[in-house]
Parts: sequence; C-alpha cells; structure tokens
Amino acid sequence: MRITIIGSGNVATHLAAAFKNAGHRIVQVYSRDMQNAALLAYHVKAEPVNDLTQIDPETDLFVISVKDDAIGIIAEQLAPFQKLMVHTSGATDLYALLAFSDQVGVFYPLQTFSKTREVDFRTVPLCIEAADEVIAKELTQLAQTISNNVYAINSAQRKTLHLAAVFANNFPNYLYTIAQQILAQHQLDFDLIRPLILETAQKVQTDLPAAMQTGPAIRGDEITMNNHLQLLKNSPDLQQLYSLLSQGIIKMDNGPRRDK
Amino acid sequence: MRITIIGSGNVATHLAAAFKNAGHRIVQVYSRDMQNAALLAYHVKAEPVNDLTQIDPETDLFVISVKDDAIGIIAEQLAPFQKLMVHTSGATDLYALLAFSDQVGVFYPLQTFSKTREVDFRTVPLCIEAADEVIAKELTQLAQTISNNVYAINSAQRKTLHLAAVFANNFPNYLYTIAQQILAQHQLDFDLIRPLILETAQKVQTDLPAAMQTGPAIRGDEITMNNHLQLLKNSPDLQQLYSLLSQGIIKMDNGPRRDK
Repeated sequence: MRITIIGSGNVATHLAAAFKNAGHRIVQVYSRDMQNAALLAYHVKAEPVNDLTQIDPETDLFVISVKDDAIGIIAEQLAPFQKLMVHTSGATDLYALLAFSDQVGVFYPLQTFSKTREVDFRTVPLCIEAADEVIAKELTQLAQTISNNVYAINSAQRKTLHLAAVFANNFPNYLYTIAQQILAQHQLDFDLIRPLILETAQKVQTDLPAAMQTGPAIRGDEITMNNHLQLLKNSPDLQQLYSLLSQGIIKMDNGPRRDK
Repeated sequence: MRITIIGSGNVATHLAAAFKNAGHRIVQVYSRDMQNAALLAYHVKAEPVNDLTQIDPETDLFVISVKDDAIGIIAEQLAPFQKLMVHTSGATDLYALLAFSDQVGVFYPLQTFSKTREVDFRTVPLCIEAADEVIAKELTQLAQTISNNVYAINSAQRKTLHLAAVFANNFPNYLYTIAQQILAQHQLDFDLIRPLILETAQKVQTDLPAAMQTGPAIRGDEITMNNHLQLLKNSPDLQQLYSLLSQGIIKMDNGPRRDK
C-alpha cells in the first residue's frame, strides 16, 4: 500500500517504521517542522514535506497522527484528495474525520511509544474502526500486516480503552516516579526496585491483577499503613494518595487475607 | 550451610527453593499448619514440623519468614538454640530480633512472590542487615550464593524501601485492577492492555520514570481529562483518584509538553 504519514511524533514514527518493514511504501512524511519530517522520512525512505500544499495525491492512505485538537484541521485540508484517511488517537471520535469525508477510519495502536525504544509491533494491539464494512476490511488487512493483535473497536469502546490505558500506564508510571523520589531522598538507588516493577507487570500477563494483589492494605495491616503515613508526614499530597489507594484496595476485598 | 525455614508462605517458599538450588541443606521447614510444612519440606527435601519443640538444634541459620507480628514471638522461642536468626520482613526493625539475641540479621528479598510463579532469584535484590560485622559478612556471602544483587541496607533504609515498594508494586497492581474493571464493564478484554502494562514497566528498567511520563495530565490536555472524569461519573471514588493522580503528574512538570 502507498501510505502518507501526517505527523512525526512517537506514534507516527513507530507506525511508519512498522509499515515500511511490512513492505508498504511510505510516500511522504508531513510535519510542520521540516527537520522532524526529514528525520522520519529518511528512516522510511519517504519524501519529507512541511506544507500541506506539497502533498502528493498519488497515495492510498493518509495516516493522521497529530495532536488530538489538530486532527480535524488536517482532515479538512486532506479531504479534497478523496483518499482513505485514518487517525491514530485513542481519545478522538471517528466523527472528527467523518465530518469531512466518508472514506475514513481509525487505526489506534494501544501501546506507549518512545522514539528511542524499539517496540515489537507484532505484539501491539491495533484497534480498528471504519466508516463502512469495505473500509473496515481494508484497514483490518493492513493492520494484520504489522500486528498479530487486531481488534474491531468502536468510538465509545475506544474512549473506554483510552481511559483504562491511563490507569494501566500513565498512573503506574507516575507511581514509579514517586517510588524513585522516595528512594532518592534516602540515597537509595532506583535499581533496588526495578526488578519489582517488572515482575509486578509480568505477573498480570497471565493472571488477573485482583488475584495478584499483595501489600499492607489487602491484608488489613493497619500498623504498617500507619508507619508508612508517618514516613510521608512531610508530603501531605502523598499521604492523601497513599490513603486513597489503600482504601480502594481494602474495599476490593471482602476482608483481610493471610499470606499476602 | 544448614538452614531451617520458619514459615511456609510465598517468601519462605521461594527462599527455601533458592537456598536448596544453591547447594545448601534445608534441615527443617516449620509451619503451624502441618500440610503447608509438609508441602514445602517435600520440595526442598527437608523434615516438616508444626511444633517448635521439635526443632532440630543441628542447624546454622533460622530464617524466620512469618507475618510481621509473629516475628518476635518466634524469635523468643528460637533464641535458646543460640544460632544465627534472620527475618525476611521489609517493614520490621532488626530490633525485633535483637531483643532476644545478638546473633541476628535481616535477609529481605525485595520482590513480589507467588507460589505459582517461578522467579529468577539471581535478579532479586537481597537487602542485608546484621547485628555486627562478622554476621554481616556471613549473611552477605550466603546472599551472594543465590542472588547477584546484594545490598547492605539498615532498618531505617529498609522501611523507606518497603514504602517505595508499595508505590512501585501494590498500588500499580491496584490500578491494573481498575483498568481491568473499566474494560470488563464495556465487554472489553484485559488482553487489550496487557502489552501496555508490560511495556510501561520495561521502559523504566533503563530510563527514569519521570522521563517516560505520557498521557493527558503531563501534556496539560484538559479536554481529555474532563472526558475521562465524565466517563467515571458513576464512580466518585475513581473520579477522586483520577483527579489526585493527574494533579500529581501536572505538578511534577514545569508545564505542558508536546508529543507525549
């Protein structure tokens, strides 16, 4: 397939590479910043452009991977080409594109990307939505060329997924930061808890997290929880967060468990 | 070394197996529950006992791996044997043992264990504390026979570590549960976000989590945050948690970032 990439952020970068590796042709990479466009274009052997008037009409698909609030603006400008357009956003309705064309869909990769980290795209869940069945089939076939985990997900489901992803990714990462800062305050190295973080995530790859819950809250250990709140006495924000999370864990169970 | 294991929980089970695999002899496994004692004893070719009067004095080390509030009670009963005793608790002071003997130490494995999951013990950080330098050396040498990550950690540091571990393990696991429940309410499979959870943890194995933060809070995306709060309108507890975590993330940065 001939694919034009609109955007040069983390998602655009990883998607473009995955498409290229799967044998598709990346026609152009557009970014407002020519340097960013050129960098990604170089990697996927495409032409860099920083002006939408320079868009090559000889393409099969526009992949719009830009900030949520810019999706509509871009879609409006690309609509006259009358080509298939998809956005890659978890939080944006299909309607953001449907307002300008009926040749549209969503191609949402549910993973966290950094430009500096390789991701095995075949394991990345790809969530597909489309304006009609023909487009759905086309996008699904395209998705299957780069991932083994392709799902049909409508806009309402995708918003739920995006919310769940915040709880599964953004918030845990923030808690890692808190842990790192607590350790740093006592001259303890973050390496001490890196294996724990990894094992916590690995455990839920096969089991459900509710069955894996451990710690003072789930076993109703008030003494330890009070000691921890005491250690946090100079951080009222962290005390509040500790209490709220612990109360949530206590409520999820029917009572204290042993051996946790 | 001849080692006697007191307890049959997750930590006792994994430590006993690691000692056995490293060539040490497990003399006995004690548990109040004979069935639990027998199960672990069978795996490490030891004698099971469920009565402290049956403890074999021909041992070099008692590893006390029981609930925090039982450590002192057990230590008092084992003190007359005049052998080295260690506990394995992150939240308990060395003094809990020092009150009964001066041949004491702490042997705290900083990892989350399930009986049903294998752990590569060589990657588990082992935190050692001891009543004196001679014991410290002995425990460190023992620790190095089962782990590549051995640290000297005093009681105050260990309490900080234990608190950090709650933020790095117990709380993220609870957030995974919330994500799973949000998905389940919309008939979406937890498999959709399992790869995201794993990648989030893998990212911080080499980088610091503060540099890896993504999501609506760090980029100051009020529209998405408000949409998420709206999706949680039937769960005031989750709304409060979402707001508190988002506020924390917003505060950690000096302002909205792009491309996150």
